[in-house]
Amino acid sequence: MTTWTDLPIMAKIEVVIDGDDVPAMRDLFLELGATGYTAVTGLSGFGHGGHHHGRLLFNDRASQSMLITVVPIEKAEGLIAGIRRLLEGRSGVFFVSETHVSRPDYFT
Amino acid sequence: MTTWTDLPIMAKIEVVIDGDDVPAMRDLFLELGATGYTAVTGLSGFGHGGHHHGRLLFNDRASQSMLITVVPIEKAEGLIAGIRRLLEGRSGVFFVSETHVSRPDYFT
Amino acid sequence: MTTWTDLPIMAKIEVVIDGDDVPAMRDLFLELGATGYTAVTGLSGFGHGGHHHGRLLFNDRASQSMLITVVPIEKAEGLIAGIRRLLEGRSGVFFVSETHVSRPDYFT
Repeated sequence: MTTWTDLPIMAKIEVVIDGDDVPAMRDLFLELGATGYTAVTGLSGFGHGGHHHGRLLFNDRASQSMLITVVPIEKAEGLIAGIRRLLEGRSGVFFVSETHVSRPDYFT
Repeated sequence: MTTWTDLPIMAKIEVVIDGDDVPAMRDLFLELGATGYTAVTGLSGFGHGGHHHGRLLFNDRASQSMLITVVPIEKAEGLIAGIRRLLEGRSGVFFVSETHVSRPDYFT
Repeated sequence: MTTWTDLPIMAKIEVVIDGDDVPAMRDLFLELGATGYTAVTGLSGFGHGGHHHGRLLFNDRASQSMLITVVPIEKAEGLIAGIRRLLEGRSGVFFVSETHVSRPDYFT
């Protein structure tokens, strides 16, 4: 990814879901090998959740959360598959990026 | 970007702006092809908004928001140009990164 | 990083720390050349802070903050070293990614 830092690369996964689905997603993270997560609650927005109706275009849906977790690359594929299964039939999207981390032992 | 996932790559755009400018930015997103966004409100900070005076160095400016949207690469250039125009004469910065998404149909 | 935008690449640093440590981290950012930052407060989560005990697995720790700053690549190494030193003996993790920015003069 870069040559300007030798910090190890891991997979950063950001999931935007309804607040009601946070406990299930958090449990999934742990079950599939994540050692921690950070939650940003009280988000608003629309559309990326997948269920936007015309009227919602001007009435943002509240009570979304973003769960952020970082896992070693070798755990990412399994976690991604699990998140996809959990999101079936639910609102929500997720993004997967590469990031460098300090303290890699915290994530393994 | 990576070889460890075959999820499609899109452009993730994060805009940090004053809360007052959120409606105009949200409308711009939609007009230029974004299918949704997520808003993190109530941010604090300074400087990245571009208008920091000496006294603000120690008095954080409140009421900023971050709008996050993800669009296909082919829509990114037009959206970036639109955001730049909207930010002229306003505080605010934006970041553009690559990210992998599930459910690419949600973003197109 | 990409070929679809000519916006300059910089280093985006995201630090997740206890709310009590925000002022020290913010001061470090400024001291080491960051021109601004954005703070997301009131986060919850566990584990990524590095100090999770068994009971915390099911009792999320509140009052974390994420500080986001963007600096030119040539300033990133020094800032990363400073953050690592500050985090010694404290909870907290940080992520370093590449991002494209508009208005590069805001960050230098």
